[in-house]
Amino acid sequence: MSELDLMTKIVSLCKRRGFIFQSSEIYGGLKSCYDYGPLGVELKKNIASEWWRAMVYEREDIVGLDASIMMHSDVWRASGHLSGFNDPLVDCLNCKERFRADKAPKAEPGSEVEFIVGGKSGGKKATGVVEPCGYVCPNCGSASLSDERQFNLMFRTSYGPIDPLGSFVNKISEKDLSPDEIRAELERCIQSSAVYLRPETAQAMFVQFLNIQQTTSMKVPFGIAQIGKSFRNEIITEHFVFRSCEFEQMEMEFFCEPGTQNEWLDYWRQARIEWYQKYANEPEKFKLRQHDKDELAHYSDDCYDIEYLYPWGWDELEGIASRTDYDLSKHAESSGVKLSYFDQQKKDPKTGKNGWRYVPYVIEPAAGLTRAVLCYLLDAYCEEKGTDAKGQEKTRVFLKLHPKLAPIKAAVLPLVKKDGQPERAREIVKKFQIEGLNVRYDETQSIGKRYAKHDEIGTPFCITVDNDSLADGTVTLRDRDTCDQKRISVDEAIASVIKLVRS
Amino acid sequence: MSELDLMTKIVSLCKRRGFIFQSSEIYGGLKSCYDYGPLGVELKKNIASEWWRAMVYEREDIVGLDASIMMHSDVWRASGHLSGFNDPLVDCLNCKERFRADKAPKAEPGSEVEFIVGGKSGGKKATGVVEPCGYVCPNCGSASLSDERQFNLMFRTSYGPIDPLGSFVNKISEKDLSPDEIRAELERCIQSSAVYLRPETAQAMFVQFLNIQQTTSMKVPFGIAQIGKSFRNEIITEHFVFRSCEFEQMEMEFFCEPGTQNEWLDYWRQARIEWYQKYANEPEKFKLRQHDKDELAHYSDDCYDIEYLYPWGWDELEGIASRTDYDLSKHAESSGVKLSYFDQQKKDPKTGKNGWRYVPYVIEPAAGLTRAVLCYLLDAYCEEKGTDAKGQEKTRVFLKLHPKLAPIKAAVLPLVKKDGQPERAREIVKKFQIEGLNVRYDETQSIGKRYAKHDEIGTPFCITVDNDSLADGTVTLRDRDTCDQKRISVDEAIASVIKLVRS
Repeated sequence: MSELDLMTKIVSLCKRRGFIFQSSEIYGGLKSCYDYGPLGVELKKNIASEWWRAMVYEREDIVGLDASIMMHSDVWRASGHLSGFNDPLVDCLNCKERFRADKAPKAEPGSEVEFIVGGKSGGKKATGVVEPCGYVCPNCGSASLSDERQFNLMFRTSYGPIDPLGSFVNKISEKDLSPDEIRAELERCIQSSAVYLRPETAQAMFVQFLNIQQTTSMKVPFGIAQIGKSFRNEIITEHFVFRSCEFEQMEMEFFCEPGTQNEWLDYWRQARIEWYQKYANEPEKFKLRQHDKDELAHYSDDCYDIEYLYPWGWDELEGIASRTDYDLSKHAESSGVKLSYFDQQKKDPKTGKNGWRYVPYVIEPAAGLTRAVLCYLLDAYCEEKGTDAKGQEKTRVFLKLHPKLAPIKAAVLPLVKKDGQPERAREIVKKFQIEGLNVRYDETQSIGKRYAKHDEIGTPFCITVDNDSLADGTVTLRDRDTCDQKRISVDEAIASVIKLVRS
Repeated sequence: MSELDLMTKIVSLCKRRGFIFQSSEIYGGLKSCYDYGPLGVELKKNIASEWWRAMVYEREDIVGLDASIMMHSDVWRASGHLSGFNDPLVDCLNCKERFRADKAPKAEPGSEVEFIVGGKSGGKKATGVVEPCGYVCPNCGSASLSDERQFNLMFRTSYGPIDPLGSFVNKISEKDLSPDEIRAELERCIQSSAVYLRPETAQAMFVQFLNIQQTTSMKVPFGIAQIGKSFRNEIITEHFVFRSCEFEQMEMEFFCEPGTQNEWLDYWRQARIEWYQKYANEPEKFKLRQHDKDELAHYSDDCYDIEYLYPWGWDELEGIASRTDYDLSKHAESSGVKLSYFDQQKKDPKTGKNGWRYVPYVIEPAAGLTRAVLCYLLDAYCEEKGTDAKGQEKTRVFLKLHPKLAPIKAAVLPLVKKDGQPERAREIVKKFQIEGLNVRYDETQSIGKRYAKHDEIGTPFCITVDNDSLADGTVTLRDRDTCDQKRISVDEAIASVIKLVRS
């Protein structure tokens, strides 16, 4: 199986079995928006709840937050997103492709390039000279390009019972304005009621730093964790749910004493990669990559990416950044609210006196939840060649998902739909439900087809009820990965599933 | 305690203890947007997961979905939201208040009303004549009003790497257009790339009906459940999180055979009110109210609201609507995709032949998750008069939240921060964590203050570790509601907390 085949197979399995559908599919879809179906919603929830357990429930030093997606636009002014969260956008004047200048193919400025007039499907060839910018159209290779313009990736909308377009029309219709003046007036009218969909969840933790520190009496070092949706109007969306305009993040801002950020960065990058590896079949496909100095954001003094070996190569899954005191300082400056921490036990290093007020430094492990869904699906996909009962060659497909991540923990299957087997099977399902586990009853199709289906959707265990079950209280427990079946008592079967799913 | 006091106290407790903060508070807040703090996020998660357990895990006939917030704009064209999801908006020409015509105070058309020129803080009185529309400004009472305009409640944004405003400016700057033509051109340019934030989660279940039915092989009757954020640009936001622009819903669309909708409506209204009552101290504060015929949406043949007795009176918490086959038919018509179901076992009532293809009817229990948070906080708030150790009168405040909803299930408190007590307390916390319960270690402040704090945030149990605990393995288990304390073994204490939280 080639690596790119794997991606195709995952996308197809996701659609066929109900993990992930394209949004609004019956209307032709909305580019790069996805809906998580009956199995996908469980897989995503399970990853999120494992993260929350590790980051919040099992730690004394981290608390949770769930902030609104819409925030005051001053938040984005202070964070720099309004002025700086841009990609350079260029139009090809030959084939009309719109692309990102910083991702375009490079060529020697002043050199000649050949391209087909009107784009690939066009007719005659022509040549052009590469501009000083040094790139050409990624679609047709032409050097005939529009000027770069900065494209802000935040989605903007209008908040409140106002009509910014109406007030614009009223304003301009009486005047004789140049196009630039019209554009400026339009921006002014829209800006007055503009709000943005957050492009990251992180800013809420900075903006609510003081509220949370004061209400919980947390002492530095401590962290605030959040899971939620973010939105970026990406120019390039790619690789299924890997890069999409609407996505989900799991971010944690860890506030620490200035000077301790390096040790906490070391701690968190190690903790985070181990967290991913714990649920993976191939832990060697996760690695840490330190950012080069020239990759770092201007406010960051160090940063690591956790990368995963996707079918298209190593690429980002989580970033763990040392953000210094940049965010809290910026918001303090812009809002006029003192976002600092007072440590009574410490001496102020400047004055040598007892009590030190400082702006905490921040380490941020920022994970992509929807990326983690893709990466665990890739990690779990298995094919096994074998033969069926008639000696024909066949391929068994199964998702070797960690039991904690598997959407359905066990399927309880009556061999036939009669003789009291469905009733007995449903009694078993009830026992799991009391434990809060997602265990499903399934009586459709032949037993072989039901096994095959549950292999393919990653159900770690099948419990089969037959006539013997009614006579002697035993069932068959089948293992997804080995296909081994053992005959044990109902209680043993339930206990062993619960143990494997919980531990 | 008056009922309106109660609301003030809840808002204050939410902020003081970290349940709910105003969004972007350090920037003056964003009207009616709220952030759920360390305790609020847990309360909201607990309500959501109880709903998911009751609706998905414990039922064979319902599966989950988690769809994107942005959908193809044809979805809203077909559902009627683009043309019809409007509130009538009016400006008062006297005081400049903007208000909803349908919620404004009524007066006799043609009668005279008195008002203060320039609004309440203005100077001299004046009179005006009520227009045929029959309402006056809710702020100043003036009858001098602008025309009504229809205000669409959906938030609109622009999707993809386009610049709709740029193309608009290019288009109009060369022409000599009237204000109406400018407005129309502007709308056309924006419309070409417009997407909307969903004003309800329900449409995704209709649009994905076929994908989900086919991938799960569900047989009608079956349901699709979803929890997620929705957005409405409300003209009036009110009562804290009760009506806000960004809110969370728990909706389920139950697809059933035509003709069976009445019995399913009966079933679901009963099931849903019982669900709310199960977690409440005052179940009598929930009631069902059938919609009058003239309240029903044009596609609905019956509808009930579950109402709660809020401090301002009975008001909506959940709607359970019988939506007929309207939604699936509309989307089938608009998309050209056949959204129907074929039942092999049934005879077609028209032809009398075996096999019946029909468009399922829908019963929709649509709950407000963020409203449920408010309603359980109101239900749980208790004050108890008593005296302290010195005989002084004092009031004990406690949140009598159902153990399943309580943010923290138990607090484990060392009496002092030494003598091995913290270590022993942390061992106990670990045992709860293995069970997946949110139990917190707390060593700050005096034991009395810690009890008071955990009462106020609704922690059902406190487990106190003292020197005897280290000698004989016993602890004190304190009950939030009764303040009773009993001395029992550590294992008994853990087991009894787990039992009460789980059962």
